[in-house]
Amino acid sequence: MSNLQQYIEKLGKLDFKAMYEGDFFLTWEKTDDEIAAVFTVADALRNLRERNISTRIFDSGLGISIFRDNSTRTRFSFASACNLLGLHAQDLDEGKSQIAHGETVRETANMVSFMADVIGIRDDMYIGKGNAYMHQVVDAVTEGYKSGVLEQKPTLVNLQCDIDHPTQCMADMDHIIHEFGGVENLKGKKIAMTWAYSPSYGKPLSVPQGVIGLMTRFGMDVVLAHPEGYEVMPEVEEVARRNAAATGGSFTKTNSMAEAFKDADIVYPKSWAPFAAMERRTDLYAQGDQDGIKALEKELLAQNANFKDWCCTEEMMKLTKDGKALYLHCLPADINGVSCKEGEVEASVFDRYRTPLYKEASYKPYIIAAMIFLAKMKDPAAALKQLEEAGAERRKMI
Amino acid sequence: MSNLQQYIEKLGKLDFKAMYEGDFFLTWEKTDDEIAAVFTVADALRNLRERNISTRIFDSGLGISIFRDNSTRTRFSFASACNLLGLHAQDLDEGKSQIAHGETVRETANMVSFMADVIGIRDDMYIGKGNAYMHQVVDAVTEGYKSGVLEQKPTLVNLQCDIDHPTQCMADMDHIIHEFGGVENLKGKKIAMTWAYSPSYGKPLSVPQGVIGLMTRFGMDVVLAHPEGYEVMPEVEEVARRNAAATGGSFTKTNSMAEAFKDADIVYPKSWAPFAAMERRTDLYAQGDQDGIKALEKELLAQNANFKDWCCTEEMMKLTKDGKALYLHCLPADINGVSCKEGEVEASVFDRYRTPLYKEASYKPYIIAAMIFLAKMKDPAAALKQLEEAGAERRKMI
Amino acid sequence: MSNLQQYIEKLGKLDFKAMYEGDFFLTWEKTDDEIAAVFTVADALRNLRERNISTRIFDSGLGISIFRDNSTRTRFSFASACNLLGLHAQDLDEGKSQIAHGETVRETANMVSFMADVIGIRDDMYIGKGNAYMHQVVDAVTEGYKSGVLEQKPTLVNLQCDIDHPTQCMADMDHIIHEFGGVENLKGKKIAMTWAYSPSYGKPLSVPQGVIGLMTRFGMDVVLAHPEGYEVMPEVEEVARRNAAATGGSFTKTNSMAEAFKDADIVYPKSWAPFAAMERRTDLYAQGDQDGIKALEKELLAQNANFKDWCCTEEMMKLTKDGKALYLHCLPADINGVSCKEGEVEASVFDRYRTPLYKEASYKPYIIAAMIFLAKMKDPAAALKQLEEAGAERRKMI
Repeated sequence: MSNLQQYIEKLGKLDFKAMYEGDFFLTWEKTDDEIAAVFTVADALRNLRERNISTRIFDSGLGISIFRDNSTRTRFSFASACNLLGLHAQDLDEGKSQIAHGETVRETANMVSFMADVIGIRDDMYIGKGNAYMHQVVDAVTEGYKSGVLEQKPTLVNLQCDIDHPTQCMADMDHIIHEFGGVENLKGKKIAMTWAYSPSYGKPLSVPQGVIGLMTRFGMDVVLAHPEGYEVMPEVEEVARRNAAATGGSFTKTNSMAEAFKDADIVYPKSWAPFAAMERRTDLYAQGDQDGIKALEKELLAQNANFKDWCCTEEMMKLTKDGKALYLHCLPADINGVSCKEGEVEASVFDRYRTPLYKEASYKPYIIAAMIFLAKMKDPAAALKQLEEAGAERRKMI
Repeated sequence: MSNLQQYIEKLGKLDFKAMYEGDFFLTWEKTDDEIAAVFTVADALRNLRERNISTRIFDSGLGISIFRDNSTRTRFSFASACNLLGLHAQDLDEGKSQIAHGETVRETANMVSFMADVIGIRDDMYIGKGNAYMHQVVDAVTEGYKSGVLEQKPTLVNLQCDIDHPTQCMADMDHIIHEFGGVENLKGKKIAMTWAYSPSYGKPLSVPQGVIGLMTRFGMDVVLAHPEGYEVMPEVEEVARRNAAATGGSFTKTNSMAEAFKDADIVYPKSWAPFAAMERRTDLYAQGDQDGIKALEKELLAQNANFKDWCCTEEMMKLTKDGKALYLHCLPADINGVSCKEGEVEASVFDRYRTPLYKEASYKPYIIAAMIFLAKMKDPAAALKQLEEAGAERRKMI
Repeated sequence: MSNLQQYIEKLGKLDFKAMYEGDFFLTWEKTDDEIAAVFTVADALRNLRERNISTRIFDSGLGISIFRDNSTRTRFSFASACNLLGLHAQDLDEGKSQIAHGETVRETANMVSFMADVIGIRDDMYIGKGNAYMHQVVDAVTEGYKSGVLEQKPTLVNLQCDIDHPTQCMADMDHIIHEFGGVENLKGKKIAMTWAYSPSYGKPLSVPQGVIGLMTRFGMDVVLAHPEGYEVMPEVEEVARRNAAATGGSFTKTNSMAEAFKDADIVYPKSWAPFAAMERRTDLYAQGDQDGIKALEKELLAQNANFKDWCCTEEMMKLTKDGKALYLHCLPADINGVSCKEGEVEASVFDRYRTPLYKEASYKPYIIAAMIFLAKMKDPAAALKQLEEAGAERRKMI
């Protein structure tokens, strides 16, 4: 009846000991086994929940979230993951806090962590800042733990930084694995991560970067496509190249959306801002140069407008493998005639993929929960087994 | 000792099977048995809590709330109901979310519901919108559930829409039932739902509509009183007429507050905006016509000012049955000389009824919890029995 | 192995019966035994948590918080304390509530308390207001409980008022007790509560007042130092004098920071506004006199600027006992060259004490939890014993 056993057996073949009491910053800082462990635990937690078995490993405790940008899905994904494990999600709303009064990261990190088992942070706006901030927080609570200030070291979960968006990309990947019936079926599959037009400007680079940094690890042919001038961080391209070389896949670039879509098994068309422009914006913000920011915004919007044909149209979809590539998006998408006049995708394409898109999103709470689970359980396989044997009902069934 | 048995026996005589996995939009969409089941389960949950017995039917899970208008009591009632059953209340603050960025209802509804067992919505501002929005949400999560995106279909609880305010009116009614010693004592009792003056404008119609739509089901003589021009939705008046005809009560209208108060057993004097004006306002908002909105507001305030004598004074109260009618209000009231110069009620009247008014409000968390309980438990009577037998302490007593 | 027994034995020697179902407004309204009971239960709860033993005494229930001023640490301390005991912290955000619409304290207090076991309030801005408001809330819920509106009387925890800051000062004191190896080692120790320069104005008086009102109870020599014109409330000085007389310690005042620091074992240099100015500000706010407020602010900042030499420098620290006094602060501090140009403390001093400062703060959640525990458990010692014997894991360990 139970198929939890398959996940437990899978975990038995993986080495992920280093994740215990660890943190999750970037997917490429994790070994293949560690990445596989996250997918496995995510699926195992989902399996238990679907069978109405409680997955609470905490009787009490807090999961702190810090969002430096608006967020619906990530906020709820984090709250859901915390709840799933028995933690109470507590948001640090910087508007309500004394951070504005000159409190340092080091201090605040400790002040909110006395009962915190997890800290989830989203900080994706400024190049060179978000990931660095997360490291400052982890350094601060690690020191706090070592010096006896904190009774536990909270685990950091990167909910999106300037470099990577690991919970998103791993949810995307878990979706791909399920759609293709297993990671073993992905060798040689072509995935196109392509830029797409949006009437807005300044969308973060963390999704395309996260995708090329992760998807190149599974033997797939990963193509990054964008108009000239929309380059992503060169360091992440280098990661993608190294990954591809190691797994027998490939990582290529093109300035043609059509070329990327050609025979693709999977397409991920999405707007982002040029890396160099984001760097300039970061500097302008640092200098408080409002006029400069406005000028840059104008310039970028004008630049975008040159590439309105970068849209995931029905025509474009026809180029893909049998015209039926799996369409991915982190949502919300800019849909032609729905959320904007001209945008990333035609309404009929989006509509056809609505259910798979929502499924894609549904993996995120489990991915986050798995990251926490692996950081907090010394023997995650035994912990899963114990949860199943205890068999506490998630919801009373009578 | 225990009197839980009486509630269990009562449930045994009622047919409310259709509520399982259902939603709660409008009271008049529910059968008499279903309405009775809500009161019975609400009272049973209160009985258990008063005896310090845990009523948690959830080990984990989220209760999502969406408030499109300010709220204290409903917000806390919903959070209280969730907590009572073991759910964590998570507010979708639309200001913090990406909804403003063009996300659709359909998408957001699914994105926040991966771990949601309940969604409570308050959306009462625009005629023709609130209830429709709730249906969109339910349709979206039902589809999400059917297509495998969601592992459970969250139950909708209408926390106030443009048409009805079921949790308020059922709390009011549960209060009446307790004050009169049982629903069987209500036949022939007179209840006056009357308009009252307020120096503000645009108060929702959902309370008077909810009251005449619900209170007409118990054999009472329900009188709706308001100055000419303050009509409520004709469809709801039709509901009230049908209800009254079916239960041997009556539903009548008058333009005289005094006539409504005459010999009334219960009075509910409260300000609301004219239905037709609310419709105009909805259109003006849709057109973004700020000048039109200001002009309408001015016009309505001037219209209101003609009816300052519609106040629940001591003189008015003397007209009621033995001068001692039960005074109801959904709170907060506009109290003469307290919260405004001239308003809905004289301070001495309000003060005399303060304790019953607070008791009236105290039923709301239980009504909400009962709606959830009936949607989530296949055999609510057995579930109540099981909770009593388990006898887990709500609060440690030592 | 377990050293919980020592706390249980200590409680056995104390009389704190009156705390059951009580509230916590001001430390000097509590007996010495009651104060000792709070420290003892705080340490016992920490002991259990450090041993991964669940301290949940609530299966469900709400802890309401009302913050009338920005707050990070107190907000998280309260949420942490609630979580530690099994309560769900629910914030009453007055911006989102209908309080602005003229709702009275009495009404709101009851409306949010149907499931509330605790209410934590921070209201420190206006002289004569904060503590009075807390009493209004307690009176309202006490009446609500007596009249059957509420099923339990929520316990008030003063999270900072215009007079005292009991959770802060008791956390400070618990820290001192641990640093000095027990309360019995404090007789004759010198503690300097001194004013310090800050480039801001209007910092509350509750910390210096709370410190002299509490620290004078342990046989220490308490010195209050500030420039002329920065007097605290005379009533609280009177409390300090009485306390000192009763415990064989002393309470003295000086206008010299150096004199206060001389041979001090503990120093607490911190900015605050003059009491008389705060009274004026309260009146100006009541009158809505914006120009008056601005003029007062300018005047106070100018006054402050006369006392920039009131800074906790390395030179100043050398005056203390062996140059090694324990440095205290409620945080965040105004640190020279870090959070401001010139402020309360030199960066090198602050840095040297960073770990003890964070430890000082770490006691606050336990102090709050202890106040709740003592109000809710009839036999706290037996309850602690029971928690240890049950030995439920706070976090699954496997």
